[in-house]
Amino acid sequence: MLSVTILGNNSAVPAFNRHPTSQVVSHDGTNYLVDCGEGTQIQMIKYKIRRGKITHIFISHLHGDHYFGLIGLINTFSLLSHKQEMHIYAPAPLQQIIEIQLKVADNILSYPLQFHTLTEPAVLVDNEKIKISCFRTTHRIECYGFLFEEKEGKRKLLIDKVQKQEIPVSFYSSLQAGLDYITPKGKRIPNEDVTANPEKGKKYAFCADTRYDESIIPHIYGADAIYHETTYLDNMRERAVERFHSTTKQAALIARKAMVKKLLIGHFSSKYATLEQFLQETKEVFPNTELALEGVTYNIH
Amino acid sequence: MLSVTILGNNSAVPAFNRHPTSQVVSHDGTNYLVDCGEGTQIQMIKYKIRRGKITHIFISHLHGDHYFGLIGLINTFSLLSHKQEMHIYAPAPLQQIIEIQLKVADNILSYPLQFHTLTEPAVLVDNEKIKISCFRTTHRIECYGFLFEEKEGKRKLLIDKVQKQEIPVSFYSSLQAGLDYITPKGKRIPNEDVTANPEKGKKYAFCADTRYDESIIPHIYGADAIYHETTYLDNMRERAVERFHSTTKQAALIARKAMVKKLLIGHFSSKYATLEQFLQETKEVFPNTELALEGVTYNIH
Repeated sequence: MLSVTILGNNSAVPAFNRHPTSQVVSHDGTNYLVDCGEGTQIQMIKYKIRRGKITHIFISHLHGDHYFGLIGLINTFSLLSHKQEMHIYAPAPLQQIIEIQLKVADNILSYPLQFHTLTEPAVLVDNEKIKISCFRTTHRIECYGFLFEEKEGKRKLLIDKVQKQEIPVSFYSSLQAGLDYITPKGKRIPNEDVTANPEKGKKYAFCADTRYDESIIPHIYGADAIYHETTYLDNMRERAVERFHSTTKQAALIARKAMVKKLLIGHFSSKYATLEQFLQETKEVFPNTELALEGVTYNIH
Repeated sequence: MLSVTILGNNSAVPAFNRHPTSQVVSHDGTNYLVDCGEGTQIQMIKYKIRRGKITHIFISHLHGDHYFGLIGLINTFSLLSHKQEMHIYAPAPLQQIIEIQLKVADNILSYPLQFHTLTEPAVLVDNEKIKISCFRTTHRIECYGFLFEEKEGKRKLLIDKVQKQEIPVSFYSSLQAGLDYITPKGKRIPNEDVTANPEKGKKYAFCADTRYDESIIPHIYGADAIYHETTYLDNMRERAVERFHSTTKQAALIARKAMVKKLLIGHFSSKYATLEQFLQETKEVFPNTELALEGVTYNIH
């Protein structure tokens, strides 16, 4: 099961008890942290995120509301004596920012920290369970979105048929892997007679901070869910262009053109005390929209 | 009135809803921020600290739990379009850490930021209202405490006597400044006949992170209140030495030897869920002790 838990949904200035950007993408026992605004580690405690399951951290860009909480989290992992390797994916200058802060504190981390510099569209993680890649978005400084693609699961046993054919339990995992079964008498039972196709892997995209830009569509096309920023309501289109952000209807248009199933919206400007209008305006263009609310986990299905 | 409001009283790892070190010393309409752990700006909102009244920030040392919230605060002041000059006093490397983070974000602040490098005992601020100086403490890295000395106020008018002598209201401020009054007939009314001595200026010391070290005593001697860290209970004396921190009884002993009036204790290790025993142990040696509790303002009198 692929899911995303929102830790912060606000833009830069903390307001109305909303926090800067951070979210946790969870898949099969691993937590992938996406952006890490100030206070993220406190939000993790509040929302009972298992920090020990975090092995990969993705930072979209180096505006403070997306990474000022990272150095504290790196430190805390060490104070808690973590041993597991930690992978950080971010624009290049973050490495120096981290290193200088560790150096002045005379700190040696308890675990290995691997820094990976983000570049143009690239696959960052690719294993039997998940593929994670990045794509450029259009912001005032170098900025990346992240695409999480769950790998297709195992074939599903049709247990009535499997039992009717008297296939031994010890061969079940081979069936799930797609093998045919040969009976003791030498008869071949085709795999597709006793199994069904696996569920298609789910696809989630975090579209970071960005101006309205259709060039991201090929990357997120057909996703089961995307998170797209809506810093402003629709009447602030001009300010959105100036500040390299998006409005409600722009996010909805991207979702619609990219034929995604569901849209989560966030990164709300601190000038807005309430969020109802964000939801309403976005839904006018893309009905299957939800507000990305802090502390809420959204299953991707 | 001199007072101190605690924003964070915990050591490095956030726990039990306690936050890393930060406190606000308030005097005559100005807020002086002392240390700025992660989440300080959120604590300020929670406890209704007037951010606009902060013009000076003092950072004791460059362990993250004392400064990771600073860059976010600097950023927020700019996003809120502050114009007033901001003075930061800290160990030298902090300047580079701030500058690199502003540079990668392509940020120009809306206000002038003046960085002052801390050195051996030095006067940092000295005006008609207050004198603020720093002194070294004994920690794993370069670390400073801060001493706030309120200047003596104006002389107090003894209003019955002033009126009996028929001194005009227009001369009251001269009386407060210590001048004698000459009547229209040329008679001298000595100042001390119609005024009383002003209240003595109050003195508060923030003793930062430190091992037990009597060398700080001359700096804080006779203070009306000091804040001294008690990272550990008394049975952890050995660990305290190893980690360059203090225990309850060590803090109390410093307070007693320095003849201060009141002791606030904080920087509690995250291993302790409750704080009662900190208070109890410290009071055994120095009775006028209080826990430095988050959100509480302690008047210095």
